[in-house]
Amino acid sequence: MNKPVILITNDDGIFAPGIRKLIEVARPLGNVIVVAPDSPMSGMSHAITVKNPLRLRKIVEEENYLEYSCNGTPVDAMKLGEQVVIGKKPDIVLSGINHGSNASVNIVYSGTMAAVIEANIDGIPAVGFSLLDYSHDADFSAVDEFIRTIILNVLENGLPEGVALNVNIPAVPKNQIKGIKVCRQAKGRWEEEFDARTDPHNREYYWLTGAFKNGDMDKDTDSWALANNYISVVPVNYDFTAHKALKTISNWKMNNQV
Amino acid sequence: MNKPVILITNDDGIFAPGIRKLIEVARPLGNVIVVAPDSPMSGMSHAITVKNPLRLRKIVEEENYLEYSCNGTPVDAMKLGEQVVIGKKPDIVLSGINHGSNASVNIVYSGTMAAVIEANIDGIPAVGFSLLDYSHDADFSAVDEFIRTIILNVLENGLPEGVALNVNIPAVPKNQIKGIKVCRQAKGRWEEEFDARTDPHNREYYWLTGAFKNGDMDKDTDSWALANNYISVVPVNYDFTAHKALKTISNWKMNNQV
Repeated sequence: MNKPVILITNDDGIFAPGIRKLIEVARPLGNVIVVAPDSPMSGMSHAITVKNPLRLRKIVEEENYLEYSCNGTPVDAMKLGEQVVIGKKPDIVLSGINHGSNASVNIVYSGTMAAVIEANIDGIPAVGFSLLDYSHDADFSAVDEFIRTIILNVLENGLPEGVALNVNIPAVPKNQIKGIKVCRQAKGRWEEEFDARTDPHNREYYWLTGAFKNGDMDKDTDSWALANNYISVVPVNYDFTAHKALKTISNWKMNNQV
Repeated sequence: MNKPVILITNDDGIFAPGIRKLIEVARPLGNVIVVAPDSPMSGMSHAITVKNPLRLRKIVEEENYLEYSCNGTPVDAMKLGEQVVIGKKPDIVLSGINHGSNASVNIVYSGTMAAVIEANIDGIPAVGFSLLDYSHDADFSAVDEFIRTIILNVLENGLPEGVALNVNIPAVPKNQIKGIKVCRQAKGRWEEEFDARTDPHNREYYWLTGAFKNGDMDKDTDSWALANNYISVVPVNYDFTAHKALKTISNWKMNNQV
C-alpha cells in the first residue's frame, strides 16, 4: 500500500502544542500535509471566509512533509489544504488535538470539528481529537498510542458514508485511562452570562462567559465516558433533520390556513 | 393570552430587506425585540465571539418594539437579545429572512440557522426563514401569509423538545407557490474552487467560490420541495451523532490494540 496522504488542521492555530503532538503521531503513518490557521480560531464553528481573500504561507518543506499556515478559519484551512496544496482528496483528514473538550454540545461551536465535518461533506474520512484541558501547556503525553490506534483503524476499516469521528480524551495520566468507548453525543448546554463592564469612555461592553451544564449522564454518552476516564469516540454526521419530529410537524394544518 | 415576546435576528445584518420584512410580519403578533448584527455575517455559521468585547446599540424604542444592533455574530446577537436586552427567554426566536437558500447542506454554513439552533439549545422555540434569492433587492412580497401561518402554528402548537424549524421559500410569485411541505434535509454539497489571483505585490491570494451540487432529489427532501415550488419546512436538531454508525464503529477492535 502506498503511504496514505494525511491532511492535518486545527482551530488553536499552527503553533499550538496540540497540533504539534498530532503531527508527531501522524508523521510515521504517511505523507503529512499541515494547513492550519495562523492564529487561534476557537469558537469559529463552521465559519467560512467569503468577504476577504485567503492567503497561504509555506513554513516547512521536507520529504513526505509540508506545513502551511493560512489566514482563514479551520474550514478554510481544510479546503485550501485539499484543493490548493494537495490538489485532490487526501486519504484522511485529522484535526486537533484541540485544547479543551468538544464533547456533548461543544461540537456545535468547535472549529476543530467543523474542519472534520467539512472533510466529511467532501467524502474524506476524518477524525477530530480533543483533550479535556484548555491550558496552553496541557499534558499530551498520554495520547500517542490511542490516537495512533484510532487513525490506523480508520485507515484500515474506512468509515461508513457520511460519517466522521469526534474523539475526546480525558485529562488524566495514561495509566488511569480505561480504554476507548464508542458513544453518542450527550445533551448539554452552556449556561452563559455576559460580564458587563464600562469602558474608559463610559460605554458599556460585554464579555461572553459561562459554565457547561450537563443534564445527560446516561452510560451511552460521551459525557459519561469522559467522566469515567474513557476516551470517547462519537460517530457524527451533518444531517440536522430531527427525523422523529417529521410526523408531528406534518400533522399541523398549515396548508388550510394560508 | 399575553402578547408573546418575539426575538428577531438574522445574518445579513440589521439593514437587510429580509429582516425588515420579518419585522413587518411579526409586529402585529407580539412584542418584538430585534437584536441583529451591525454588518453582514453570511457564512459565519455558529461562530461565537470570545476574543473581543461585544457592544449593543439601541436604534429604535417604541411601544412593544425595541431594535438593537450589535458587533457580534448571529449567535452572539441571539444570546445578547435573550440575556442582556430581554433578561429572560423570549417566547419565540425568529431569524431571517435570509437572502439565499439555507436548504440542504447550506444549513451547516448558515448564521441565520445557527441563531435558531442556539435558541433551540437554550430551550426556546425557534424558526429560521430563507428566500432562495441572494440579491439585496430580492422580492419578499409573496412571503407574508406563509410566514405568519408558520409563526402562529409554532406559537399555538409549540415545538417538540430539542426541535427547531428551517423554512425555505422558493423565489417565485405567490400564485405559483403550491403550499408548505414538511421534509428532511437533502444531501448535497458545494463543489468549491479557489479563484487564485496575484496581488500588486506579486503575492498569491485566493477567493472562495463554488457551485451547489444536489445529489439527492427524493420527494421527501427540501431540495425536491423547493424545486417544485413548495415552501420547505425541515424540523432540525443539534444532535450530530450518526446513530446508525454506532454499532459498526463499536465492533472495531480498538481496545485490544492499545
